[in-house]
Amino acid sequence: MTRTKVCVIGCGFGGLEAVRALARSDAVDVTLIDRTNHHLFQPLLYQVATADVAAPAVSGPIRHILRREMQRGRLTVLRAEVTTLDAGARTLTLEDGSTLAYEHLIVAAGATHSYFGHDEWSRFAPGLKTLADAFDVRARIIGAFEQAERTQDEAERAACLNFVIIGGGPTGVELAGALAEIARHTLREEFRHIDSRSARIVLMEGSPRVLGAFDEALSASAARQLRKLGVELHTGCQVTGIDAAGVDYTEQGQPRRLAARTVLWAAGVAASPLGRALAASAGAPLDRAGRVQVQADLSLPGHPEIQVIGDLAAATTPTRAGPKPVPGVSPAAKQMGRLAAANLLRRLRGEATRPFRYADYGALATLGRNAAVVQLELPAIGRLRFSGYPAWLFWLFAHIYFLIGFRNRLVVLIDWAWSYWTFARHARVVAQAVAPPKQAPS
Amino acid sequence: MTRTKVCVIGCGFGGLEAVRALARSDAVDVTLIDRTNHHLFQPLLYQVATADVAAPAVSGPIRHILRREMQRGRLTVLRAEVTTLDAGARTLTLEDGSTLAYEHLIVAAGATHSYFGHDEWSRFAPGLKTLADAFDVRARIIGAFEQAERTQDEAERAACLNFVIIGGGPTGVELAGALAEIARHTLREEFRHIDSRSARIVLMEGSPRVLGAFDEALSASAARQLRKLGVELHTGCQVTGIDAAGVDYTEQGQPRRLAARTVLWAAGVAASPLGRALAASAGAPLDRAGRVQVQADLSLPGHPEIQVIGDLAAATTPTRAGPKPVPGVSPAAKQMGRLAAANLLRRLRGEATRPFRYADYGALATLGRNAAVVQLELPAIGRLRFSGYPAWLFWLFAHIYFLIGFRNRLVVLIDWAWSYWTFARHARVVAQAVAPPKQAPS
Repeated sequence: MTRTKVCVIGCGFGGLEAVRALARSDAVDVTLIDRTNHHLFQPLLYQVATADVAAPAVSGPIRHILRREMQRGRLTVLRAEVTTLDAGARTLTLEDGSTLAYEHLIVAAGATHSYFGHDEWSRFAPGLKTLADAFDVRARIIGAFEQAERTQDEAERAACLNFVIIGGGPTGVELAGALAEIARHTLREEFRHIDSRSARIVLMEGSPRVLGAFDEALSASAARQLRKLGVELHTGCQVTGIDAAGVDYTEQGQPRRLAARTVLWAAGVAASPLGRALAASAGAPLDRAGRVQVQADLSLPGHPEIQVIGDLAAATTPTRAGPKPVPGVSPAAKQMGRLAAANLLRRLRGEATRPFRYADYGALATLGRNAAVVQLELPAIGRLRFSGYPAWLFWLFAHIYFLIGFRNRLVVLIDWAWSYWTFARHARVVAQAVAPPKQAPS
Repeated sequence: MTRTKVCVIGCGFGGLEAVRALARSDAVDVTLIDRTNHHLFQPLLYQVATADVAAPAVSGPIRHILRREMQRGRLTVLRAEVTTLDAGARTLTLEDGSTLAYEHLIVAAGATHSYFGHDEWSRFAPGLKTLADAFDVRARIIGAFEQAERTQDEAERAACLNFVIIGGGPTGVELAGALAEIARHTLREEFRHIDSRSARIVLMEGSPRVLGAFDEALSASAARQLRKLGVELHTGCQVTGIDAAGVDYTEQGQPRRLAARTVLWAAGVAASPLGRALAASAGAPLDRAGRVQVQADLSLPGHPEIQVIGDLAAATTPTRAGPKPVPGVSPAAKQMGRLAAANLLRRLRGEATRPFRYADYGALATLGRNAAVVQLELPAIGRLRFSGYPAWLFWLFAHIYFLIGFRNRLVVLIDWAWSYWTFARHARVVAQAVAPPKQAPS
């Protein structure tokens, strides 16, 4: 029996689900391509950045996660980067120049940061999408406190102790809450020349409220909880410039500047560059963020053999009030992954494909110790909202539940319990030494 | 009361012990300087490199380890690099150009790799001294298997599956044993186009036997155990060249070459460059490896206010047969740290210093699963040797016992139990993506 060659690009939540579903079928031979060797549980990445957990606790080698699928002999995993594709010839080009032929393609290449046309800000304000980003952010946070302890210059010390987080979505509030805890508790007694509690954690959000995807009452509750944790909240605040020494912004029409050595970017998301490749080669329509506007069944117009899922897809879901955009969250990506796999197999059997319908169970975000907001959509009952300690517990168990692998669940639970009771963060080690001096000629 | 200003350079085993002992005294104000923010439990660093444990399991933030000493208000910790020193003016120069005055100085700056005059080999054959080294080695090991799976070229595939470890001391045999286990067990069922068990793990040692510091019988046992684990042992083997494609060596007088993508360096150790700075400024005599030849009480000739300890010191210990060199192992470094602190305080009190006397309790090395050698020196009884499973158990508990911090002990024990029973290595994630392609102009 000849198996249909399927390529899946990206092993995030969407790609992983698609591969798992496809691997059950005898009709396909699957090649999964990812730039890294691991699947990342992105909702907990901020904890790697803020030194709460080690990287292996929230990520796992793709080969290990898929070892059972692998053993059936119909799955190939490649660590490679797809640089472009030819939808006419049905080939992918990899970063080493080699090509790979496919008959069906699922593109789940995800998203990257968008600096809204100011790519020069990326040097000064890293975002948080990959493990490498998390290590960079961790090194910057630790480095800022170390430099504050070291410097004799009062202005530099103040800038070292100013931490600016730009963007009040889930990642931004998580980072801000964790930083506040680091400054107020974790490092409290570990410096001699500074009081870590004097650090300012400044969260800047352009819109009038944080967590804009949540109900207004929960946004307000999140703002209160963040302030209680020690976060300075600046809403309606537009960032106009970022450089090595700080941030320019306007607030209530006034231009202002804050000197800060550490600036973290949690504001803009842009689709993977593969969106543009799909537009160029397959004529895929893109939205303003560069995401691919897929058809109801997640395929491209004119290219039923190509499906796009996850954060790279601008998909809609039918509601009584008409089609509604699907948010870029992991449950949506997983649901798309399963549907894309099922639709692909339906096509191979000559059956009609089915449209994507997003099952929205709500949203949740954590803000720090005992602080979170939860908004559940319950089918018969309607919307259920809660915040504070119960929401935090709910968030905790939901994330443990969805973490991949029994071992990771156990390890993260132990890490969290440890941090909770001791206020210590065990993953505070930074591999980089201070910048070595220029070699004297000798 | 005026406290004497003491600087300690380096927070390895020696520096940490010295600071702990000094912090108990009211007579001194201590500044500890390290290039990184963590103390590293170096004996287990190879497990970070071979993906058995995460970095935070074998390292801890210096500030956290010393938080109680910190709270007494007489200890400053600086993450900084000492670039040079002026023994006349009694100042240190840091990498940012600032200077620091001391009245007493303990230099515990450790060692780095020596490529025996072939520094150009370092690019192709990284050594293992720091967490950054360990991440580099891990990325190379994982990357080699990934590339073997990917390539269509048979010669390249073979080179990807050849792993050369140069140096048959403790680090070399540990790396070789762990690599053999990765190839034979961990990755066995996770590839489709290669059989990971076909990987060759080649250990090259210049002298006639591995683990030269051990008795001959234990060396022979170690060699047998390594072969059983799947390691190819080449003793009496001189490396003459290393490049991106492999290793040149002579064996039994014959020049040979082995194509290998992964070459790891566990052969030569050179003292920290601060040894040369001490020679230039304080006239300290150096040995061939660049280590400082200290006096019996660990101080420098003519500079009683400077003491050198740990791997940077070429110290001797009295024996019936005359002075014997102290080996570069962690128990020796710890003992020197304690004596240096005590001698410093004795000097402040106007008392005579005491000479260093190395209490040698023996040596142990692990080779892999259930495989190790142990050689104990028991005061009244004499030398006790054993190998195999009992030695491995002994090694395991000895290392757990000496790991710093209750949490780390617990975490490493859980990690080891997990690896032991499942053969999985949970820390196999590599942050780096494949090399991104050059940007096309657009």
